[in-house]
Amino acid sequence: MRIARFSIDGNVAFGAVEGDQPDQLVLDIIKGIPFADFELSGTKVPLSKVRLLPPVLPNKVVAFGRNYAEHARELGNEVPDAPFAFFKPSTSVIGSGDPIQYPSFSQEVHHEAELAVVIGRMCREVPRERVKDVILGYTCANDITARDVQRREKQWARAKGFDSSCPLGPWVETDLDPADLTIQLTVNGRQRQLGRTSEMIHSIEDLIVNITEAMTLLPGDVILTGTPAGVGPLNVGDEVAVTIEGIGTLTNKVVKRG
Amino acid sequence: MRIARFSIDGNVAFGAVEGDQPDQLVLDIIKGIPFADFELSGTKVPLSKVRLLPPVLPNKVVAFGRNYAEHARELGNEVPDAPFAFFKPSTSVIGSGDPIQYPSFSQEVHHEAELAVVIGRMCREVPRERVKDVILGYTCANDITARDVQRREKQWARAKGFDSSCPLGPWVETDLDPADLTIQLTVNGRQRQLGRTSEMIHSIEDLIVNITEAMTLLPGDVILTGTPAGVGPLNVGDEVAVTIEGIGTLTNKVVKRG
Repeated sequence: MRIARFSIDGNVAFGAVEGDQPDQLVLDIIKGIPFADFELSGTKVPLSKVRLLPPVLPNKVVAFGRNYAEHARELGNEVPDAPFAFFKPSTSVIGSGDPIQYPSFSQEVHHEAELAVVIGRMCREVPRERVKDVILGYTCANDITARDVQRREKQWARAKGFDSSCPLGPWVETDLDPADLTIQLTVNGRQRQLGRTSEMIHSIEDLIVNITEAMTLLPGDVILTGTPAGVGPLNVGDEVAVTIEGIGTLTNKVVKRG
Repeated sequence: MRIARFSIDGNVAFGAVEGDQPDQLVLDIIKGIPFADFELSGTKVPLSKVRLLPPVLPNKVVAFGRNYAEHARELGNEVPDAPFAFFKPSTSVIGSGDPIQYPSFSQEVHHEAELAVVIGRMCREVPRERVKDVILGYTCANDITARDVQRREKQWARAKGFDSSCPLGPWVETDLDPADLTIQLTVNGRQRQLGRTSEMIHSIEDLIVNITEAMTLLPGDVILTGTPAGVGPLNVGDEVAVTIEGIGTLTNKVVKRG
């Protein structure tokens, strides 16, 4: 099931996305929330009539660095033996269609297409064989990065945590095997990144075992699993799109920060 | 005014702390929340009858590294020209009296006493002269750090973000000049850290200008301003106490993670 979060006439709701034709999708409004038992109301609205919101409101986004060997090397970095994590704050999250605001303190903002894992239940110290049970589903993410600031500042709170630096969407796909999916990113329709999730150095199981060894994850928290090679600059006016096989496309325009 | 957050008989409330004798403090229960107009109800309960909670529930904790030169040097680090920030997640926050759970993935957990700034209003791109306006007050913090993990992992999400790694409290002092306060930390009554906030390399104004250049702060968000020299290990069974002049004492016991 594809679960979207949206607003219509000032109301916020979750809905199940139905249909195959991109311009004819319909939302069946969900009674309840996707993190507990819920049912479909049968009340349907065309997707074209709503504003998509970030599919979840994460308490925290945990992102893993250098999880694709070719990407680590393209930035001149070693491939790490163990995964390492950083946070993106809730204030950085935007949905598909929302603008990425080019920050005033950077002259080199990069895109990074990533598979995002959405956590479905509160969990800590998850054993490898139970990882599947704590996952609600998957969505597309763009780990927008002020590359110049990242080089200058030892920790990446500003470089990767600025407002609008975490586009997520368009919705959460709950029925998906994430083991070997194509991840593609285009800027103004031209391909910049192309990879497969099978190229991850550390698996989704590894990453969730690693982080929950240290901290509790809450329903709606998001894990970013790293970006494949091909990262590059974004400029004001660009339209950037992340497409992951079996999920859909997350599209955002880059605007001057207002 | 000293504003505490507490629970009594299963209810959570804010209260103004009254009195001078540590064992005779009384809470005047607040009607409303401290981030908007509020009044004191006149209904009073002894502090000894309540459980103190973290004085705020931050959406994010932004912590600055190496903001006291002597501390940077004691760990063999250079003193950075510009401030750099990292996040501690909301799931790491505990209050005074709550246990610090020694994490299973570290053998070297350190204390770091810090002055914490509590943000009072939503803000972004705060000019230096307006910084005072966005601050609700100040509290004590202990930036508990898995030092061995910090050395191993390039980004510090696990080393400084594990559950219970961010004790805050005991309350927020709203009437305080933070420019030159004594910060002291003891372990089992023996002094380990002693410094003055006047030794900060980057002022509170610098730090808030720096972070809000990148991201929106929300009411209840917390800024940690760095630790003075004297950091050192904690062991299961230790009682660690951070005392800041004009605020009070934040006390936590270290326990085995259950």
